[in-house]
Order: sequence, then structure tokens, then C-alpha cells
Amino acid sequence: MESFFSFLEKRVDDSSSLLCVGLDPHIPDLKEPTAASALDFCLTLVRQTAPYAAAFKPNAAFFEVFGAEGWVVLKQVIEAIQAESNRLGSLIPVILDAKRGDIASTAEAYAKSAFESLGAHCITLNPYLGKDSIDPFIQNSEKGAFLLCKTSNPGSGDLQDLHLENGMLLYEHVAKLAQAWNVKNNIGLVVGATHLDALARARAAAPNLWFLAPGVGAQGGELESALKAGLRKDGKGILLPVSRGISRAENPRRAAAEFRDQIINIKRSLN
Amino acid sequence: MESFFSFLEKRVDDSSSLLCVGLDPHIPDLKEPTAASALDFCLTLVRQTAPYAAAFKPNAAFFEVFGAEGWVVLKQVIEAIQAESNRLGSLIPVILDAKRGDIASTAEAYAKSAFESLGAHCITLNPYLGKDSIDPFIQNSEKGAFLLCKTSNPGSGDLQDLHLENGMLLYEHVAKLAQAWNVKNNIGLVVGATHLDALARARAAAPNLWFLAPGVGAQGGELESALKAGLRKDGKGILLPVSRGISRAENPRRAAAEFRDQIINIKRSLN
Repeated sequence: MESFFSFLEKRVDDSSSLLCVGLDPHIPDLKEPTAASALDFCLTLVRQTAPYAAAFKPNAAFFEVFGAEGWVVLKQVIEAIQAESNRLGSLIPVILDAKRGDIASTAEAYAKSAFESLGAHCITLNPYLGKDSIDPFIQNSEKGAFLLCKTSNPGSGDLQDLHLENGMLLYEHVAKLAQAWNVKNNIGLVVGATHLDALARARAAAPNLWFLAPGVGAQGGELESALKAGLRKDGKGILLPVSRGISRAENPRRAAAEFRDQIINIKRSLN
Repeated sequence: MESFFSFLEKRVDDSSSLLCVGLDPHIPDLKEPTAASALDFCLTLVRQTAPYAAAFKPNAAFFEVFGAEGWVVLKQVIEAIQAESNRLGSLIPVILDAKRGDIASTAEAYAKSAFESLGAHCITLNPYLGKDSIDPFIQNSEKGAFLLCKTSNPGSGDLQDLHLENGMLLYEHVAKLAQAWNVKNNIGLVVGATHLDALARARAAAPNLWFLAPGVGAQGGELESALKAGLRKDGKGILLPVSRGISRAENPRRAAAEFRDQIINIKRSLN
């Protein structure tokens, strides 16, 4: 059965990369605060970094903020990634960072929006509403979802680090649930690379899942320790999203290439 | 200090209502599966039910599913509610049901999208990322947020009912946090009216907060028991969203009026 993570692993092999290029057209990073400028920002990044990207991750908020025009741009960005994939002869998955989560009939509409209207391959979801809020996104094994587990922000502990009666932390319990729910090989977890202990605990609770681990680069995590703590035994299983660390570099293409090469070196040294 | 809940309470007094009319242009309810048809559906509902509505609650998913056109329509619907407010001489708050939740810089973009681009007065948020993910939405006391606490869907227990080490259920802990975070009178909770026990527990944990309590009507809760379990001592504090129970009624205007009158009768009998 083809699954989202089989597509992702194919691309990881093709690119020798675990880099996920974040497409966050923050207004302060744009030439002008317009949707057209956001498009320009994203298209430049996509063209420069595609050869080194295991995946792209546009963040819905930075498009939504431009209203209807932002949605037109988001769709154009996803189409541009598809065009780069065709040019490279290797499908680069698009993970829509939307952190949605709603009850079933509403979740169906969000799934349709992400996968059909926009053409994304995967989405980030908030698990607080439980399994039935995730189901509409994972029925088709070729589409995937990363569930928030332990996020990289300072307030993440308010709920995620609560101690449960059974001795686990809440985020560990989420990791265990996700591992159990992953019957079609299309569920992963968001685990901040800023929390090395959390990466290790989530890996213990979910030995097979892919992690989307933000925090390396602009957010201050360290690549080698993150890979040590989060990689699966097969040397895969962790995708490293970087946004400003690449978009604000003097030469984004070189920054992406160097990041990819660093990953290759560290993986070699870990073997 | 003017706050979101002071606006809401003014409207609750003006309309003698606790009804929140849900604007969910589900595709099966539309004449045609188009954004134009969704607009028509919502405008008809707004005009027919405004006199009986303490608030309106458009659900972002059912607009997003139409892509950019859906966002144009969502904005038009919010403008139409403003026009009805002007006609009635009483501001009807708009609660954008979006269940967003993201780290700080991203949350700022979502807040800007909801409150500035779209013109909503309040938003539903997912608390899983913690306090700093809520802050950008509540800095201006005139804008409000309802945090998901105990939702009405069958899977809500997967996380929300987990027992914490301190003896509380997770959703009770969320209610307690929200009560503590509510220093500007602009934070409420989403507590499904289908769970009477949860309504009572959340009320005990958060005696002052407004609840948005879906599940009465189409989702099967019972109005009287919900009001008994969830009302504050001042006879306010619970807003009852109804979507299909009104939109699918033969006469939506009459359905809204009857629901409002029922609320008045039950509140009188409870005194």
C-alpha cells in the first residue's frame, strides 16, 4: 500500500536530506506587506532550495493574514512546488502547517480544503479533540498528518508536560496514542528539537513514527543532539523544518545545501 | 475597561437570549456547492435570526473549503452581521469558530487574520500549546477567545478526560487555567452541552467564565439540564450555539424565536 511516509522516504533518499524548508512569509521579511510580495518570497525560496528539500512546509497563518488573496497565493506556492518536483523528477511532499483540529463533519471540510482545494500532501493537526477529529485526514493513506506532541514554544509545558495518573507526561501519552493510531503509515508527530529530553521520550513511546522537529537553526536547537535523540534505528524518522535560518541567510540556496550536507556528515559520524 | 464579555452581556440583555446562531454552510445544505450559495445561505440565516441571536458563530472550515472565494464570503457574512447590528441598534458579537492554536509569531498572524482582516470579535482556540499561544488573541480586552475545554464529539475523552496526577481531569485543569488567565474579562471555555457532568465540573473549576456549549438541539443535549448545570449564579455565563437545528428548520426565524423564548421560560422557572 502506498502511504504518505513511503512518498516521504523516497524523497529523503532522492535528496539525501532531512531538511524541511519552512515557507513563512512573515510580513517583516517581505519587500511589501502584500500577498504578491509573499508569493515572490515563497517562489524564490522554493526555486533556490528545492534540490536540498526533503519536504516543504508552508504555514497557513502567514497566507490567511492576507485574506482571500493569501489563499490564492498559497495554492500558487503549492503548484510551484509541484512544478519543481516535476523538473527534478522526484516528488517533494508539501506539509501544510495549519494545526487544525475540529469535530468530524468540520474536520472533513478542513481535510478537503487542505488536500483537495490546496493540493497539500500532509497537514499538522492538534490532537486535543481526540481520534475522531484526526480520522478524516488519514483515511486516504497517501495523505498524512503530523500530530502536535511536544511543541517548541516556551508555554508548551502548560498542558503538554502535565503528569498523568499513569505516570506518563501528557505528550508521551499523545505519542503512544499516535503510534497505536498509525495503521496506514501516515501519522507522525511534532516534537520540538529544542527539547532533547522530549525527543528521546517521544522516540521511546513511538519508535516507528516520523517526527517533525522544529527548533534547529533560528530557534536554537542543535542539529547533532537532535539527530542523536530523535533518529529511528534506520537513520530516518526525523524531519527538520527550518524557516528563517534559510530565508534570512545571505544565500538561501547555499544555506540549504550546507544544512543538508551537515545532516549527511552527522549521520555518517553516528553510524 | 470595556471587554469582550461586557459587549456580549449587553447583547444578551438587549436580546434576552443566550442563543448563538451557528453559520455552517455545509455543502449538503446548499442549493449548489459554491461559495455564492454559501453566502446566500448565511445571509438568509443572519437576516431571519438576528433579533433572537445573542451572537453569531461562523465556522471557518465551511468557508475555507471554497478556497479564496470562501474567504471573500466569510468577510461578507461578518459585514452583514454588522449591518444587522446597526439596524437593530445593538452590537451582535461574531465568534469565529476556527479552533486555531500556534506558537507566538504565528498566533499573531492568526489573530490579525480573525480580528483585523475578517472583523470578528472573538475566536475559538485550542489550548494544547499553552498560554503564550493564547496571548496574541487576548491582548486587546475588546476581543475575546473561547478555549476548547471539553468538546462535544465522541472522541473528546481520548485526551480531555485523562486523569492527572493531581486528581483532576485534563479538561478541569484547562478550566482552572483559563479562569486564572482571564484577567481582562475576555476568555471563555468551550464545554459541550452533551456532557452535563463536564458542564458542572467545568463550572466548579471556572465559576466566572462564559461557556460556549454546543450540543443542544441537533446534537442532542437538553436545554433545561444544560442551563441548570452551566449557568452562573447571575443567570448568564452560557451561550448555546445551534446550527442545523435552526438552518434546517422549516422556518428558521420561528425556530430561533422559539429557542429564545424557551431559554426565557427555563431561566424564569429556575429562579
